Amino acid sequence: MSEINKLKILNDPIYGFISITNPLIYDLIQHPYFQRLRRISQMGMSYLVYPGAHHTRFHHALGCMHIMHKTIQVLKFKGVDISAEEENALCIAILLHDIGHGPFSHAMEHSIVENVNHEAISMLFMDSLNETFTGKLTLAIQIFKGNYHRKFMLQLISSQLDMDRMDYLKRDSFYSGVAEGNINSERLIQMFNVQDDLLVIEEKGIYSVEKFLVARRLMYWQAYLHKTSVAAELVLTKILKRAKDLTHQGKEINASEPLQFFLQHKIELGDFDANVLKTFSYLDDFDIISAIKAWQFHDDFVLSELSKMIINRDLPKIRMQSDKVAKDEVVVLQKTIMEKYGITEKEAEYFVFRGKIKNQAYNKTDEPIHILMKDRTVEDVAEASDQLNLKALSKPVTKYYLCFPKVLLEKAAI
Amino acid sequence: MSEINKLKILNDPIYGFISITNPLIYDLIQHPYFQRLRRISQMGMSYLVYPGAHHTRFHHALGCMHIMHKTIQVLKFKGVDISAEEENALCIAILLHDIGHGPFSHAMEHSIVENVNHEAISMLFMDSLNETFTGKLTLAIQIFKGNYHRKFMLQLISSQLDMDRMDYLKRDSFYSGVAEGNINSERLIQMFNVQDDLLVIEEKGIYSVEKFLVARRLMYWQAYLHKTSVAAELVLTKILKRAKDLTHQGKEINASEPLQFFLQHKIELGDFDANVLKTFSYLDDFDIISAIKAWQFHDDFVLSELSKMIINRDLPKIRMQSDKVAKDEVVVLQKTIMEKYGITEKEAEYFVFRGKIKNQAYNKTDEPIHILMKDRTVEDVAEASDQLNLKALSKPVTKYYLCFPKVLLEKAAI
Amino acid sequence: MSEINKLKILNDPIYGFISITNPLIYDLIQHPYFQRLRRISQMGMSYLVYPGAHHTRFHHALGCMHIMHKTIQVLKFKGVDISAEEENALCIAILLHDIGHGPFSHAMEHSIVENVNHEAISMLFMDSLNETFTGKLTLAIQIFKGNYHRKFMLQLISSQLDMDRMDYLKRDSFYSGVAEGNINSERLIQMFNVQDDLLVIEEKGIYSVEKFLVARRLMYWQAYLHKTSVAAELVLTKILKRAKDLTHQGKEINASEPLQFFLQHKIELGDFDANVLKTFSYLDDFDIISAIKAWQFHDDFVLSELSKMIINRDLPKIRMQSDKVAKDEVVVLQKTIMEKYGITEKEAEYFVFRGKIKNQAYNKTDEPIHILMKDRTVEDVAEASDQLNLKALSKPVTKYYLCFPKVLLEKAAI
Amino acid sequence: MSEINKLKILNDPIYGFISITNPLIYDLIQHPYFQRLRRISQMGMSYLVYPGAHHTRFHHALGCMHIMHKTIQVLKFKGVDISAEEENALCIAILLHDIGHGPFSHAMEHSIVENVNHEAISMLFMDSLNETFTGKLTLAIQIFKGNYHRKFMLQLISSQLDMDRMDYLKRDSFYSGVAEGNINSERLIQMFNVQDDLLVIEEKGIYSVEKFLVARRLMYWQAYLHKTSVAAELVLTKILKRAKDLTHQGKEINASEPLQFFLQHKIELGDFDANVLKTFSYLDDFDIISAIKAWQFHDDFVLSELSKMIINRDLPKIRMQSDKVAKDEVVVLQKTIMEKYGITEKEAEYFVFRGKIKNQAYNKTDEPIHILMKDRTVEDVAEASDQLNLKALSKPVTKYYLCFPKVLLEKAAI
Repeated sequence: MSEINKLKILNDPIYGFISITNPLIYDLIQHPYFQRLRRISQMGMSYLVYPGAHHTRFHHALGCMHIMHKTIQVLKFKGVDISAEEENALCIAILLHDIGHGPFSHAMEHSIVENVNHEAISMLFMDSLNETFTGKLTLAIQIFKGNYHRKFMLQLISSQLDMDRMDYLKRDSFYSGVAEGNINSERLIQMFNVQDDLLVIEEKGIYSVEKFLVARRLMYWQAYLHKTSVAAELVLTKILKRAKDLTHQGKEINASEPLQFFLQHKIELGDFDANVLKTFSYLDDFDIISAIKAWQFHDDFVLSELSKMIINRDLPKIRMQSDKVAKDEVVVLQKTIMEKYGITEKEAEYFVFRGKIKNQAYNKTDEPIHILMKDRTVEDVAEASDQLNLKALSKPVTKYYLCFPKVLLEKAAI
Repeated sequence: MSEINKLKILNDPIYGFISITNPLIYDLIQHPYFQRLRRISQMGMSYLVYPGAHHTRFHHALGCMHIMHKTIQVLKFKGVDISAEEENALCIAILLHDIGHGPFSHAMEHSIVENVNHEAISMLFMDSLNETFTGKLTLAIQIFKGNYHRKFMLQLISSQLDMDRMDYLKRDSFYSGVAEGNINSERLIQMFNVQDDLLVIEEKGIYSVEKFLVARRLMYWQAYLHKTSVAAELVLTKILKRAKDLTHQGKEINASEPLQFFLQHKIELGDFDANVLKTFSYLDDFDIISAIKAWQFHDDFVLSELSKMIINRDLPKIRMQSDKVAKDEVVVLQKTIMEKYGITEKEAEYFVFRGKIKNQAYNKTDEPIHILMKDRTVEDVAEASDQLNLKALSKPVTKYYLCFPKVLLEKAAI
Repeated sequence: MSEINKLKILNDPIYGFISITNPLIYDLIQHPYFQRLRRISQMGMSYLVYPGAHHTRFHHALGCMHIMHKTIQVLKFKGVDISAEEENALCIAILLHDIGHGPFSHAMEHSIVENVNHEAISMLFMDSLNETFTGKLTLAIQIFKGNYHRKFMLQLISSQLDMDRMDYLKRDSFYSGVAEGNINSERLIQMFNVQDDLLVIEEKGIYSVEKFLVARRLMYWQAYLHKTSVAAELVLTKILKRAKDLTHQGKEINASEPLQFFLQHKIELGDFDANVLKTFSYLDDFDIISAIKAWQFHDDFVLSELSKMIINRDLPKIRMQSDKVAKDEVVVLQKTIMEKYGITEKEAEYFVFRGKIKNQAYNKTDEPIHILMKDRTVEDVAEASDQLNLKALSKPVTKYYLCFPKVLLEKAAI
Repeated sequence: MSEINKLKILNDPIYGFISITNPLIYDLIQHPYFQRLRRISQMGMSYLVYPGAHHTRFHHALGCMHIMHKTIQVLKFKGVDISAEEENALCIAILLHDIGHGPFSHAMEHSIVENVNHEAISMLFMDSLNETFTGKLTLAIQIFKGNYHRKFMLQLISSQLDMDRMDYLKRDSFYSGVAEGNINSERLIQMFNVQDDLLVIEEKGIYSVEKFLVARRLMYWQAYLHKTSVAAELVLTKILKRAKDLTHQGKEINASEPLQFFLQHKIELGDFDANVLKTFSYLDDFDIISAIKAWQFHDDFVLSELSKMIINRDLPKIRMQSDKVAKDEVVVLQKTIMEKYGITEKEAEYFVFRGKIKNQAYNKTDEPIHILMKDRTVEDVAEASDQLNLKALSKPVTKYYLCFPKVLLEKAAI
């Protein structure tokens, strides 16, 4: 395809259009490693609560690139010097920042792989693509890894107010219909500036930052940590753990080849050679959900019960509270379910369990969001704000949960 | 017109359609007292900052009625007993709650009339309409005045989370384009309930309340108390004061008859007999702006200078700060302007002045927003929320300003 | 104010933000001739049907400038050579294209002035501003008058698919809530190109052109030519005619000075010298509506009756039909009203009258909308479309009306 | 679960909220037959063109139910007598109208099953659910099959302006970002009425009908029949055919059990007994896409080549034209590919083929869209409209295509 044909526009209901303005970016998008993101849902199990939430990491990555492009235009208009090469590298870095996500990452990271986070895998993919594209991603990788001397560039990609967060809040809000998360990304973009190599928001944008932080907090509690989504994700984690356990016990488990591979092997970050990476690249939501569909009919009671919960959206109950759930209560419920289902204690732990979830809208110990005051000084947004509101958002909120099957409803207070 | 022809639908870009489902409401809307609201802008001088903010109190009143209607349907669906008569009264009360607004109320209340607030005038209009419509508004007036035994009905009309606030935040955000104020009124409406004659929001709506309060706070600082709007409103107040002073000095002032009346007389609430009310009903934005247009060419220097500032949007500078503005600074600036313009000290006070503005997103000493917890207890939202965020919103924020003509820019730090 | 402070952004609920990227444009916007557009409603009397339709010609002009800016970026990206000077001139020309509008132009052009259209006055204003700004508008004026050698530039400003139409359809649809008029201006902008000095739309945008033409047709019949708006505008025209007649008969008529001037004099285009233009520049909606408010109480029966119709939205009936209204029917109704009101035949013509309105969504005899086919040939959109649909839109539609007071309802079939 | 807990609201970004107001409807939605629709994409392969188009038939069915509910309220308000039982039946019928869809229906209907359309399967599912729910669906089924005496009820479910079309146009437009398809469903709903047992649109809604028909036409050409989607769907059909052929030849094909079943057997409508229906109910997008992912590595060249095209979005070229593609051209291209790939003539037909697609925005021979004129007569919308526009929309448009692999690009003009 000629270079000119690679300058495309794509429809996006959020930004109207996303332009691909560069043949290299076109080729990256066409690469199977990137196309696979079309088959990885952005919000995991949330569609069980918000039926519209089926958008993908593919779309999110394109959205991030779009607002990166817009932000760069604003910064250049304000006199920030950004070369064509740097611009391109920034767009590539943000386009690929999430390429390491597997299907249902949160669940997978605690089951299929052993504590391998998606950022690490993103770097592996980027290195691999850099070989394929003969070094053209070197600068993007430098920025992404924090090795480039212009620090504000990393902040555009990864900070408490970066392109990633701006796009996912807006996009997740749009597709789920949770209006509370809709941020004014357009205004935020207009307010960006760079001062002393720091990414800053101009003072008159301070209320938009406040709105952004509140929106993020609300999206956590209304969507990402919605108790039904949490329950579904926990069940999914248990399913994958059970499948892995059964595999290791030598039981036959129906699954696609790449999924089989990860069930059979204990894969840590160090194990990710070229072959493992390639196999990982074949994994997506379709492997997981198809397997669970088949596992509904597996003769292992635990695996089939849990699988049916997901497929028929017949989820366990989950109780949220501000204090830790007492061990005693868990034990009592597990005992009850052991009797009811005729299962072992170990198996009962797949059905009755406790844990916690945590969120902090703004982290004061991380690098702060910088506000450029009218007198050209730079302040942490939590200080620059005219009142306690933002300080309040810095306090972490922890919630504890107890999860158990519906059949125990009369036993457990909810 | 036959009764059936009075059942109309009106286009509204916010809610899609507003239905008039009752011939009496149709007749009230047709009444000149209500039609005059078409000529009274909802956001006063804000169009000088947000060029789209030209929507009227007429449209807002219809919007309030629409969401009152929706809210009543939700409450009835949840089993709250509301009779057809009460429903009608609630719709009428909210439709007319702002009918006492004059043009640019905030400025007028401190110039044209003497400390007469619009709520008091709304009651006068409602009493007058009740005569015209032979007592059909009696129940609406009872509710509006807080004399009806079902207290939650007043809360629907006037409380910290009422139909008025829900419509104006959404509408002002829509027309001005200040996205930060866009609230999820639809979700809030779905969450309303009544418990022990208290209007409550169900617990799962708590994040929407938080969003609502934050949106309100942001709209105050980004729109209602935007420094340019504040400056314009202060100039307008000064203009009306000057015109009144000149009138009392016997100078001839070009103005419409109703405006002349209020310039010539000192009208307090007690003076509002049927004739004064009628005259007041002829006043709207057109009287004020037309007068100011003419006053640009008046031979009184103060009046013409100030008038030009509004008409040509050539507004004075305004400096906002967290501490009170020192009297000394004001005096120095006034002296400078006296020399520059060759005016008296008294006249200089029209051009250089200080003051303060204040906002509190949520008032804990007023009646709180009640949250209905899952265990059926009722809590103040500031307590029910899982963190400090809402408590932070209860802290009043005061800002002090200094206003002065552009020609003093080099004299005054800004 | 320093040049850098003139680079502003303005909130616009439609496009998000409108940037002023040029100090000259900032100064033009600040000029009283342009600021007056803040006081001239874009949709005239339509707010009597669509209560949200209070947006102004000021906002529309800024919107046009914004999409001109976007379109120029697209054309430049596609390789069309446009110099910085030309870009600036295009933005200025579109910003000022409607500056000659008076209040309620359609009504005024047939009453206050004698067949002077707003385009002619726009040119006068532009020439005047060019003097003020020492020739900096020369190129903009050349393009606007069709005297510049690059013909596609005029097409951007004035053609069947220009910035003006794109903004007003979208804006009028937004503020009125008539969803049928909402066009996809973003896609249209992406599809613009220039071929052989012709403004063209690329073939894959053909459906967006079709949507645009249909939207225009629907906005005409649902909004611009909505029968109630038409009735209001006709009454307004009659009011102004009556006021002019009475003035010429020596009756005293209360009105602002600039309005008095136009009532007293018969002003044709040739009379527009610097003084008349200045006086015209003082006229806006406030002069007209304030006058009508006062005229409600005038002792001329015709003037006061008609004025009350507008102020209290108590409009006459209007019957639309596809055939011409018979003269006989008009005469009978006029006779009836003469008796009823005790007025002369001449006066009766103010209350009962007939006429016609006409619309054509696409005019095949004007310069067509050009489609750039994949083989680089250029076709008229009505030919390029795959079916009869667009040809159908080229057929003019005429509707005839009969207008009469409500009191005749039982006499006239409606 | 108690009956009261089954009254739920669901977030929908399009309508805000969708309420489940009836325990039976809650139970139907919970049924696995309905939950499977969560795993069937509404727009099939369109996400390869519009990356947001991942919404499901589940969401669409809920949306249809929502607007059915709204429409019934409007009709009842206008005096149409609809009993609670009928209301419920209408909601159930529309909720289930598409329950028979399999994954990628258009492709499947010509490959996996033998000319079994989804409407027929919907009826089978409804009959089966009626057994499960002990006859509570009987009235819904009667209406759906056209056996109920009130004919307008069927028109609400299935006609040229039904709930189905209103929801899918709006929803597909929303998720894909093709703004041209966004219809004003709210206005259409307000305009519905019933006259002589016919579903009609009141005359003042005629422009909204026009907009609806144009939107439908535009969605066909811009989305449903977008050439890239068409190409993808054709490839998918070929893949399934190939897989079936290979299976019948005794080759081993990796696929889920339910998909294996349909590959191994030739299933016509008459074969759909309870078991086949159950097996069919296990099929969804995950079976198809997972299979194609695996088939990329199958040793059959045709199957693996075609599968890679879908997975890596490396689609064949498709040329659209208004005349039939000449057989000769096809033969030449097939020969070329035979040589290039070393495949048989039969195999070449999987890569090079021709066909046609057709659309008609409005069908005058079907039951028309009825307009209720002001004089209470009923007219076909194509006659009632004031011009040729709608007649134009009645003309069917046919386009012919030629599909071939990219490697032949230099051979085939495009």
